[in-house]
Amino acid sequence: MTEARRGATATCRPTGTPDRQRPIGALRDGEPVAVEGGVEGGYEAEALLRESRASVDPELRSAIASLPAGMRQVALYHFGWQHADGTPAAGNAGKAIRPALVLTAAAALGGPAARAAAGRAAAAVELVHNFTLLHDDVMDRDTTRRHRPTAWTVFGDADAILVGDALQALALRLLAADPHPASAAAAVRLADCVMELCEGQHTDTSMERRAPGEVTLDETLVMAEAKTGALLGCACALGGLYAGADAAHVDALDAFGREAGLAFQLIDDVIGIWGDPRQTGKPAGADLAARKKSLPVVAALNSGTPAAAELAELYAAPYEEGKEDLDRTALLVERAGGRDWAQARAADRMAGAMQELARAVPDPEAAGGLLALAEFVTRRST
Amino acid sequence: MTEARRGATATCRPTGTPDRQRPIGALRDGEPVAVEGGVEGGYEAEALLRESRASVDPELRSAIASLPAGMRQVALYHFGWQHADGTPAAGNAGKAIRPALVLTAAAALGGPAARAAAGRAAAAVELVHNFTLLHDDVMDRDTTRRHRPTAWTVFGDADAILVGDALQALALRLLAADPHPASAAAAVRLADCVMELCEGQHTDTSMERRAPGEVTLDETLVMAEAKTGALLGCACALGGLYAGADAAHVDALDAFGREAGLAFQLIDDVIGIWGDPRQTGKPAGADLAARKKSLPVVAALNSGTPAAAELAELYAAPYEEGKEDLDRTALLVERAGGRDWAQARAADRMAGAMQELARAVPDPEAAGGLLALAEFVTRRST
Repeated sequence: MTEARRGATATCRPTGTPDRQRPIGALRDGEPVAVEGGVEGGYEAEALLRESRASVDPELRSAIASLPAGMRQVALYHFGWQHADGTPAAGNAGKAIRPALVLTAAAALGGPAARAAAGRAAAAVELVHNFTLLHDDVMDRDTTRRHRPTAWTVFGDADAILVGDALQALALRLLAADPHPASAAAAVRLADCVMELCEGQHTDTSMERRAPGEVTLDETLVMAEAKTGALLGCACALGGLYAGADAAHVDALDAFGREAGLAFQLIDDVIGIWGDPRQTGKPAGADLAARKKSLPVVAALNSGTPAAAELAELYAAPYEEGKEDLDRTALLVERAGGRDWAQARAADRMAGAMQELARAVPDPEAAGGLLALAEFVTRRST
Repeated sequence: MTEARRGATATCRPTGTPDRQRPIGALRDGEPVAVEGGVEGGYEAEALLRESRASVDPELRSAIASLPAGMRQVALYHFGWQHADGTPAAGNAGKAIRPALVLTAAAALGGPAARAAAGRAAAAVELVHNFTLLHDDVMDRDTTRRHRPTAWTVFGDADAILVGDALQALALRLLAADPHPASAAAAVRLADCVMELCEGQHTDTSMERRAPGEVTLDETLVMAEAKTGALLGCACALGGLYAGADAAHVDALDAFGREAGLAFQLIDDVIGIWGDPRQTGKPAGADLAARKKSLPVVAALNSGTPAAAELAELYAAPYEEGKEDLDRTALLVERAGGRDWAQARAADRMAGAMQELARAVPDPEAAGGLLALAEFVTRRST
C-alpha cells in the first residue's frame, strides 16, 4: 500500500462519531471538491468499479445470451452492447455501482474468496436494476437513458415491458442456480427488494399526479428510500450474505447502502435541476419542466417562504416553452431553500452511512472500499 | 373407489397407443359432449380443482397480504377478492388449473406427502400466471378479464405493470424461502418458464403487427406453446420435482402439460370465435373484430381456399361495425377449414399428452387425476 492510499484510508475511515463538518465530495455547490484524501478515494472507487465491471460483465453477457432471440436484441440495446439495428456497440451500461457494492461488501467481510463467490449475486442485482429502468422508462415516458433513446421509444412499450420481465426472471434464476449456501437467502432478500422498488415507483407515479401542495417531505423521503436506497442496501446486504456474515452485520450493510443511496438520490435531484446538460445528457431544467416533485422541489414547496408560493403557482400549471424561464424556476427552488436543504440532508445521510459502515465492517481498512464507493456516488456530476 | 369411478379410470387411462378416434370432451362443435367416463372425469376434475383452490388460496392470500399497501389493493382487485373501491368481493380468480396441475402431479408421483409439500410451488405458479395476465392485458389493451374490467383500466398502466412485477417477485420469493430440497430446481424451472412466456408474448405482439399472409402456422404453434403450453408444462414439472422424481419423469410431465396446454389453446381459440358470449364474458366475435391471428384463423388463412382469400381481404383492414358481419367472418374461417383443423389438432395434442403421461406416470390409477384435469381443460366452454 502506498503512503497516499494509507493516508486516504486514515482520513476516510468510518467512526462511531463522524464529523459532520467534514466536507463530503460533491456536496459543496454540487461540484466535485478536492478534499483531503478525496481524489485518492475517487481513484480507488474508479478502480473498484472497473474491476467490478470486469467481473460482472461476463456473467451479465452470458445471462443475456440465454434470452430467446427476440428479447435478446432489446436487452443488448438497453445495456449499450448493440445499436438498435443489431450492430455491435461499445457499451455504455452505466457505472455498475450496485454490482461493485455487492463485490466490495463481500470482500470487506469475507476477503477475495467471498468476492469471487459473489459474482452471480452481483450480476443479479444489476439485472434487477436494469429491469426496473426498462419499466420505469415506460411508465414515466422518459425518452433518454444514458445519452441514448430509451428501449420503449425504439422497440415499443410491449418489448420494453417483456424484456424487463425477463431480466427479473434472469436475476432470480442466477441466484436459484447458484450452489452457494447463501443463494436462497440472497434470492429472498432480492425479491423483497423488488417489491420495495415497485412500491417506491408506485408512490412516485401517484405523487406526480397529485397537486404540489399535497405532497409531504416525509413521504417523498420514504419514496426515495424505496426507489433508490433499497437496491443499494440490498446490494451491500447480498455481499454480506455471500461472505457468511451474521444477520446483524448484513442488516448494518443494508442500512449503510440505504443511507448512501438516499445521499446519492438527494445529489441526483440537485444535479437534475442545476447539473450541466452536457454531463447529465438531459436538457437543462428537464425535471422542472416535467414538474417532477424531486426532493429539493418538495422541500422548497414545504418551506413556507414567498418563493415557495411562487413555485407552487408555477408547478400548478404545465410548463409552457417561451412563457416560463426554467432558470428562474430553479432560482425559486434555491431561494426557498431546496438546494441547501438537499445538500445538508445528503451530508447527514452520508454521516449516517458511515455510522452503519462502522457497525457492519469494524476494521477501517476493510471498510475502505465501501466508503470510497459511497463517496464516489455522492461526488458524481453525471 | 366406486364402480363408476373405476370405470372412468379404465376408460381414460393413458396408453402407449392412444385411440385417436375416441371423442374428446368438448371437441365436438365446441360444446361439452357426454362421452363414456367423461362426466365422471369431469366431476373428478372439479373436485381436484376445488381441493387445490382450498390448499392454494391461503398461500396466495398470505403472499398478497405481504405486498406493500399501495400495490396490495391492485392485486386483491385482480384476484377478484376486492372491488375497485377496496370493499371485499366474493372472488373469481379463475379455475386455478395450474396450481391443481402442480398438486396433482406431485400426488401422482409422491402421494399425499408430496402434494402437501408442493403448496408453495402451486401458489408460485399461480402468481406467475397472474403476473403475465396483468402485463398482457396492458400490452394487448384488453379491457375485460374474468367478466370484470382489467386492472389497467381501473388503476392505470403503471400500477398494472408494477403489481405484475411484484407478483413475479413474490412467486420466486415463495420458492426461495421454501426449505424443500426441490425448491431451487423449481425456481430455475419457473424462471426459465417466465422467459418462455415473455418470448411467446413478444412473438404474439409482433405477429399481430404483421400482414395476415406473412404469419405461418408453424410459428403460431410455437408461439402458442410458449404462451400457454410452457406454464402448464412447468406446473406439472414442478409437481414432479416436489415428488422427488428423476429428470426423465419430470421432463415427461412437462411434455404432458405442454401438449395438454396446446390442446387447451386450440379449444380456447375455437371458443374465442364460436363460443357463447354469456359464457366467455367477451362479445361474440371479439377475437375476429380485433383481427386476432388465433390458431383457427391462421390455419384458415393458410388453407389456399377461396374462403381464405376472402378472409385475408377482410383481415387486411380494421373491423368496422355495421360494415362487416362477424358471423360471416366466422363462417369464412369455418369454410376455410380453420375450425375442423383446430379441433383435429386438439385431439392429436390430447393423444400426445396421454403418451407423455403414460411415460411420466406409468401407473394408470395414479395418472387418473392429471388425465381428468387435461380432459377438463379441453372440455371447458368458458
